[in-house]
Amino acid sequence: MAASGLREKLHTIIFGTDTPAGKGFDLVLIYTILLSVATVMLDSVAAIHRTYGNWLYALEWAFTLLFTVEYFVRIYISPRPLRYIFSFYGLVDLLSIVPTYLSIFLTGASYLLIIRLLRVLRIFRVLKLVRYSEEANMVIRTIFQARRKIFVFLWGVIVISVVFGSLMFLVEGPERGFTSIPKSIYWVVVTITTVGYGDITPQTVFGQLISTVAMLTGYSIIAIPTGIVSAEFINESHRMREEARRTNRCVECGRPGHEPDARYCFSCGNPLAEPAPSTSGS
Amino acid sequence: MAASGLREKLHTIIFGTDTPAGKGFDLVLIYTILLSVATVMLDSVAAIHRTYGNWLYALEWAFTLLFTVEYFVRIYISPRPLRYIFSFYGLVDLLSIVPTYLSIFLTGASYLLIIRLLRVLRIFRVLKLVRYSEEANMVIRTIFQARRKIFVFLWGVIVISVVFGSLMFLVEGPERGFTSIPKSIYWVVVTITTVGYGDITPQTVFGQLISTVAMLTGYSIIAIPTGIVSAEFINESHRMREEARRTNRCVECGRPGHEPDARYCFSCGNPLAEPAPSTSGS
Amino acid sequence: MAASGLREKLHTIIFGTDTPAGKGFDLVLIYTILLSVATVMLDSVAAIHRTYGNWLYALEWAFTLLFTVEYFVRIYISPRPLRYIFSFYGLVDLLSIVPTYLSIFLTGASYLLIIRLLRVLRIFRVLKLVRYSEEANMVIRTIFQARRKIFVFLWGVIVISVVFGSLMFLVEGPERGFTSIPKSIYWVVVTITTVGYGDITPQTVFGQLISTVAMLTGYSIIAIPTGIVSAEFINESHRMREEARRTNRCVECGRPGHEPDARYCFSCGNPLAEPAPSTSGS
Amino acid sequence: MAASGLREKLHTIIFGTDTPAGKGFDLVLIYTILLSVATVMLDSVAAIHRTYGNWLYALEWAFTLLFTVEYFVRIYISPRPLRYIFSFYGLVDLLSIVPTYLSIFLTGASYLLIIRLLRVLRIFRVLKLVRYSEEANMVIRTIFQARRKIFVFLWGVIVISVVFGSLMFLVEGPERGFTSIPKSIYWVVVTITTVGYGDITPQTVFGQLISTVAMLTGYSIIAIPTGIVSAEFINESHRMREEARRTNRCVECGRPGHEPDARYCFSCGNPLAEPAPSTSGS
Repeated sequence: MAASGLREKLHTIIFGTDTPAGKGFDLVLIYTILLSVATVMLDSVAAIHRTYGNWLYALEWAFTLLFTVEYFVRIYISPRPLRYIFSFYGLVDLLSIVPTYLSIFLTGASYLLIIRLLRVLRIFRVLKLVRYSEEANMVIRTIFQARRKIFVFLWGVIVISVVFGSLMFLVEGPERGFTSIPKSIYWVVVTITTVGYGDITPQTVFGQLISTVAMLTGYSIIAIPTGIVSAEFINESHRMREEARRTNRCVECGRPGHEPDARYCFSCGNPLAEPAPSTSGS
Repeated sequence: MAASGLREKLHTIIFGTDTPAGKGFDLVLIYTILLSVATVMLDSVAAIHRTYGNWLYALEWAFTLLFTVEYFVRIYISPRPLRYIFSFYGLVDLLSIVPTYLSIFLTGASYLLIIRLLRVLRIFRVLKLVRYSEEANMVIRTIFQARRKIFVFLWGVIVISVVFGSLMFLVEGPERGFTSIPKSIYWVVVTITTVGYGDITPQTVFGQLISTVAMLTGYSIIAIPTGIVSAEFINESHRMREEARRTNRCVECGRPGHEPDARYCFSCGNPLAEPAPSTSGS
Repeated sequence: MAASGLREKLHTIIFGTDTPAGKGFDLVLIYTILLSVATVMLDSVAAIHRTYGNWLYALEWAFTLLFTVEYFVRIYISPRPLRYIFSFYGLVDLLSIVPTYLSIFLTGASYLLIIRLLRVLRIFRVLKLVRYSEEANMVIRTIFQARRKIFVFLWGVIVISVVFGSLMFLVEGPERGFTSIPKSIYWVVVTITTVGYGDITPQTVFGQLISTVAMLTGYSIIAIPTGIVSAEFINESHRMREEARRTNRCVECGRPGHEPDARYCFSCGNPLAEPAPSTSGS
Repeated sequence: MAASGLREKLHTIIFGTDTPAGKGFDLVLIYTILLSVATVMLDSVAAIHRTYGNWLYALEWAFTLLFTVEYFVRIYISPRPLRYIFSFYGLVDLLSIVPTYLSIFLTGASYLLIIRLLRVLRIFRVLKLVRYSEEANMVIRTIFQARRKIFVFLWGVIVISVVFGSLMFLVEGPERGFTSIPKSIYWVVVTITTVGYGDITPQTVFGQLISTVAMLTGYSIIAIPTGIVSAEFINESHRMREEARRTNRCVECGRPGHEPDARYCFSCGNPLAEPAPSTSGS
């Protein structure tokens, strides 16, 4: 009974975000994650590693132990532990502690690089932060609704890249940096996304002509995903205003119960959605 | 009679996409095309060509024979063969098999590069894939409706490029990489599309001033095609919602026959188009 | 009387675009302008100038004489010649013939470059083409309506460039390519417009940090002009649809006189603007 | 009484913008600020500093004294001086005069760079100009409303940068320019913002593959802030038109009191907002 009470309490704190304790826990967790990511980053700078390597190593172990405790507590308090373990965040939580433990057993000289790879994987810990934003859900939902149109767009970009890449491979040839079709495709992507490193550049007149067409293509087609996403955001914003109008809620803070003729939210002061013209006209 | 029955059956499988057999055929075709394109690509990498050149050559012939059979079957089962042959996809189908056959007759040492050109042309086979997307049609239709405004924009970009290109040719001159007006125009396109390879850069103070103006111009006018296409996508989305509202269909899955007061599609769960406010108000 | 008749006839052909003769004249003029621009461009390529210099020189004189005749005919047939001469296109017409004549008198060895400058000015001839598009007016009008907001945006970009430029001048200093504040501002514009030549790059850790902020700023604020212009295009398209609805015209081809319940234009087949919902509901 | 009268008069001139004297003062101030910024900029060019250094030094002192007088007058005439001093513009006004005075006391040879830093800080004076635009407020307000969504977007960009940066650090390694994770993150930002300096470029096949994905990601997600800001601008423009319709004002010039059936503003000639369809239908 007491254990079940503790579990419920811990559940409210760790998984919930409504109580002050739950909010505090989330904030502490966010800052801890950011600090642990910063540790890995700083350790990758050669000069810092030479001077503070030991301190950073100790810090990394401290963070790992902390996150391990957190991981097991999360499993303990879950009503359905297996579901948590195999959920997206469960796997991310596991992946963000395992590498440090693995680095004990894999200590051969030739394995050093692999250990570094494992340690860097801990940076995925940062992905956990995504779950902390309500606003993010709206943005993600909007992008999600445009997914099929964006897929069509990306497919078009790939086809264009393959066609231009093959053309440039033939026109410029291996002796001018376009050593193979995959490398030429890499160059086309560098070009049509307007990144333009300049590590490979067209040198023949005909190659520069094709590049010009590729650049103008890239410069124009950026309008397509932008148009798709803009239309989706406007639709979403329409939908939310319609919803707010029907339920008499404030679009900004979600507060319900406004007077029908109210023009500003009495809670946050933002303008309310206009009543539909036909409703006011009838 | 039997032949005509076979033709009809084959027509349903090869040209149709509604039956399971038709869908299966399309999927197999897509993967075969992608594999054949990958073969050409891998063969262009010098290291892979040296080791696996023979295998890839054999694979290429296998794909060519397969596509040849498919091409003739398509002609055979078409109700109007000539129309198919001279259609866009008919020509693409032909172009994607011819180069391999031509490579037999053009085998002289000096012709090697041309053979490679012919073989690479087979990559256009990838264009066939465009026909497999319903969603693509909507995107293409929207772009098509904005074609005239985009043409005006591209014309403006060309005029700006010619004017800036001539100016830079005079200001920087041949000794700083701007060897001719066409090359200066190439530089302007590299600049206003914000690609910026850096193979040619302005070195005089006045040249850098003109570049700054060119960059800010390019950075600002990208807003024009984006604005045009966004407006068109929003119009299209409006039109589709209006259509769905009038016909009581779901915008997402196209399912008809919803109750007038239904708010979510009973087939896919997405929200339905709101009834027009005035209709509900009267 | 006869002269006045000829003037009127010529006026219809040269200034008008409605009659077949007027349309034909415009098309011939466009192609002549494009050819004359191509002549100047080709002449700037050193290899072509060496071989075909004389021919191109002759061609340039032929074009100049042709445009001179056209210019005087335009003055002759104008009802108010002075107004034409001092109009924008009148000045462009003059500027596009004067350089070739000036190149006769300025033949000193040290003046050669100036002559080339004068000859290149003829490329402004291409600006004449802008007048030939109806669709361009709509695009230009839309941009014009957003001019004040775009000016605010450009002012913001300039302030940001000056602030970041001064910071980078102090952080990186003259010995790393940031030789003066104006040059640092040039670098900032190269960076925030996402052109990124790479001729000057930050080398200190602090400089790279500031660059990162500058890049993210440039990457984000591109959304502002795009948003402004998109909103303006959507407003414009709304206005045109409203206008078409009120006058029963087709939005695409402008054909009036459709039946009130018609859904597609009987002239071009495009969908008509929907009647306003409230009108159909009452 | 007289002093209070002078204070009020000065207040109208210096803080106000409605009277001719107030407008004149603002214009003179703007040009003075621009001139003083130009002085600092020119002084940073080594060649100009050598020749005109003394003149520019004198000019800088003249501007500083002028702005000092202005600063104290502003404090004197403010009804609540402390509020002005600690306001944003009060601090900017102070920061733009302090560095020149500090440069007297810090004159040691080793402090030269710091003096330059202090002098360059005066460029922040340019920020004062922001207050002179009414139109800017509308743009800023719109951006402000989208702040939370843009924050989510920037957070996503940071997460993506950290993940891609760690990956590239492991794949390419220190010997190919990716010397640490922070430097790799710098490279990722250069790439996904499509700046692409080319000072560090991927050289392994796998690194180029990851780069391609990073570029396409950056190229696609630019659509997100653009979509957000476009939607916000369209909402804002809707709101302003609704407001104009309700108050019978012209959207362009703000002139009220138009006849209900008027279609164009009698003051500036721009089209008025259409009356809501349902109002005209009932």
